[in-house]
Amino acid sequence: MKKPLLYITRKEHFNAAHKLYNPNWTIEQNDAVFGKCANANWHGHNFDLYVTVKGHPNPDTGFIIDLKQLKTLIHREVIEPLDHKNLNEDVPFLKGVLPSIENIATAIWERISSQLPNECKLHKILLYETEQNFVEYYGETEA
Amino acid sequence: MKKPLLYITRKEHFNAAHKLYNPNWTIEQNDAVFGKCANANWHGHNFDLYVTVKGHPNPDTGFIIDLKQLKTLIHREVIEPLDHKNLNEDVPFLKGVLPSIENIATAIWERISSQLPNECKLHKILLYETEQNFVEYYGETEA
Amino acid sequence: MKKPLLYITRKEHFNAAHKLYNPNWTIEQNDAVFGKCANANWHGHNFDLYVTVKGHPNPDTGFIIDLKQLKTLIHREVIEPLDHKNLNEDVPFLKGVLPSIENIATAIWERISSQLPNECKLHKILLYETEQNFVEYYGETEA
Amino acid sequence: MKKPLLYITRKEHFNAAHKLYNPNWTIEQNDAVFGKCANANWHGHNFDLYVTVKGHPNPDTGFIIDLKQLKTLIHREVIEPLDHKNLNEDVPFLKGVLPSIENIATAIWERISSQLPNECKLHKILLYETEQNFVEYYGETEA
Amino acid sequence: MKKPLLYITRKEHFNAAHKLYNPNWTIEQNDAVFGKCANANWHGHNFDLYVTVKGHPNPDTGFIIDLKQLKTLIHREVIEPLDHKNLNEDVPFLKGVLPSIENIATAIWERISSQLPNECKLHKILLYETEQNFVEYYGETEA
Amino acid sequence: MKKPLLYITRKEHFNAAHKLYNPNWTIEQNDAVFGKCANANWHGHNFDLYVTVKGHPNPDTGFIIDLKQLKTLIHREVIEPLDHKNLNEDVPFLKGVLPSIENIATAIWERISSQLPNECKLHKILLYETEQNFVEYYGETEA
Repeated sequence: MKKPLLYITRKEHFNAAHKLYNPNWTIEQNDAVFGKCANANWHGHNFDLYVTVKGHPNPDTGFIIDLKQLKTLIHREVIEPLDHKNLNEDVPFLKGVLPSIENIATAIWERISSQLPNECKLHKILLYETEQNFVEYYGETEA
Repeated sequence: MKKPLLYITRKEHFNAAHKLYNPNWTIEQNDAVFGKCANANWHGHNFDLYVTVKGHPNPDTGFIIDLKQLKTLIHREVIEPLDHKNLNEDVPFLKGVLPSIENIATAIWERISSQLPNECKLHKILLYETEQNFVEYYGETEA
Repeated sequence: MKKPLLYITRKEHFNAAHKLYNPNWTIEQNDAVFGKCANANWHGHNFDLYVTVKGHPNPDTGFIIDLKQLKTLIHREVIEPLDHKNLNEDVPFLKGVLPSIENIATAIWERISSQLPNECKLHKILLYETEQNFVEYYGETEA
Repeated sequence: MKKPLLYITRKEHFNAAHKLYNPNWTIEQNDAVFGKCANANWHGHNFDLYVTVKGHPNPDTGFIIDLKQLKTLIHREVIEPLDHKNLNEDVPFLKGVLPSIENIATAIWERISSQLPNECKLHKILLYETEQNFVEYYGETEA
Repeated sequence: MKKPLLYITRKEHFNAAHKLYNPNWTIEQNDAVFGKCANANWHGHNFDLYVTVKGHPNPDTGFIIDLKQLKTLIHREVIEPLDHKNLNEDVPFLKGVLPSIENIATAIWERISSQLPNECKLHKILLYETEQNFVEYYGETEA
Repeated sequence: MKKPLLYITRKEHFNAAHKLYNPNWTIEQNDAVFGKCANANWHGHNFDLYVTVKGHPNPDTGFIIDLKQLKTLIHREVIEPLDHKNLNEDVPFLKGVLPSIENIATAIWERISSQLPNECKLHKILLYETEQNFVEYYGETEA
């Protein structure tokens, strides 16, 4: 018998400071490309993070994954290292990474995908920087 | 000439009680797995339901499907049977189903997919239990 | 020198089951007045609770009240007793209370107003049952 | 080395009047099919538009596309022609188009897809007419 | 014994066309003052309406007012006359009124305040034109 | 004849970095009181600002105040000085102010209240730091 395949999502959030700044460039280049996002003294955001996992509901629980377990995993791997932190300065797994939402989402995928239980797989990382700007990553890569 | 293929969504909602409880298990097993969601006297939610249909816009109306017709269908098949009900006790099409959002979404797919007019197809059921927890089903199955 | 008076709010939420049912009435009377809200097997909601406190910012902290402290207080007095519970059956401080949002909000006021630190006062309880239905209580009474 | 592929979205909005009305039909036919949406003197909406672009983050900027550039493009191609306008009467690129959200979204795709820089591609147009009604277009066509 | 005084709110919405246009002025004056809001062919909005009523909960029902009754009243007095209409042209009770949200809210107050049951009173009309622009009216007047 | 008195609100937003840190205290005292909000390298937020003005609608325009004018004023006095800035370091009018939302809201009141046209008055500053934490200021003071 065929089992349905579903996608379940947990939303969490963190508040952090960052700036968009390429240390290989001059201040003028950074200002020209990043504008006010390059402000030397930082700015910040309320980031909303949606983690989507796919799998089959377990017949005994109705769950793809226990959302309490997923919440705990997201907090340990992402929220605790990032919440109330400076994304350019304070986060070991973002060292050397220019903290655009594209690069943060890619780094979050790496943190979570390897930690999920065997019966499900990471499907999507959705990261909002503001209500108007957000990025999605499905683990796809191209040469 | 090629016709564009689009996806249109109607949002509806219902308020219901449920508990996560496997009747084949002891109370202790249920408490261990489901925690406060197993509370014997039930708890409840405002469920938000998004039904997405795909198809080609009709040249005379610009519609994939008349959203008034889709709304009527969702109310007849889902909202009336579920709204202000107990999902474990009161709903014929959920009898014997552990009412996780995964299982409710799968059951809603079955209710709606067979009732759509020929010119469009059900694409997705998206069901929110809370703003932080939601599930998507595209009718996919695996052996 | 005059000190500014401000109002600060903390939002929390809980998910619970209830029914609107007057035990002094017949089933028919309850159905006539409360309609589907009287469903014998309960229904439920995601309740959003906003607690507003007024006071003067402390010169050393800039705080009317430490929101971590207010969050802890709301959780102890309201969220833990109500979350994933049946409001008609499970909550000692709602025993004998018909759990309309009006009556729940009034009861929440009593739970919180006496527990605040001396330097601030409870200003408002705002309770959402759905996005369309909500109630506000400022502790006002009339003979 | 493989480069990650991501999807970035910018949200903008416009307020416009329209009616659903097929000029090849009688008033009675229009009323029968479109109901109150055919009101001769128009009605209107706050439209929310989400434009999603896919590509690889640039190693120097972390950007798939500069969102300031995408915002400018959306404003020039869509918001300025549509905001505070009558979608049946005032918009050159909608002349002869029945302004259902399906047809508006398809027209917006054409406006934007050809204007993007080479390093990224348009992935999706998502258009909300109300919180309950929205349409998605991925540029797919079928014979 | 003193009875608590509470405020209960029902949210409804309507979609309508309007323009801001003073018929005693020239087109140039209208354009200078109202800008794109004076567009001759109209524009439109999704209006969100919040009606707040104050009173004492009835001891038998826990209700200030039955929200089903309030919903019916709002629909009859406001939503049916305004939804999918042109606010300058189609609405008898707005004839001769410049349909700014200020003036619409004042007119809605008049429609509803006289229709409420004796045991409660209208407290506030809150009207959103967009998420960024809204107006509140408490029935206050000044000479 | 009596003129109605209404309250109109404009919403704007800014993204900024800050930390809660009292420079007269040791690091240990700051950590004990402010917890993770005292992180030396800053954190940040998306701040939502609602400015409410009261007055009588002008008979010729229907406006209490032209919202384009209010938007321009808010941008000049608040958004430009605060957006993508560090609230502890970069803002002249917050020098020496501990940037809690209470203190920021009070400072914003001072910036705006003196700049409004004569025919209306500032009524409220509402400032959200997160969806769960916000503060309101009506210009009230006490000895």
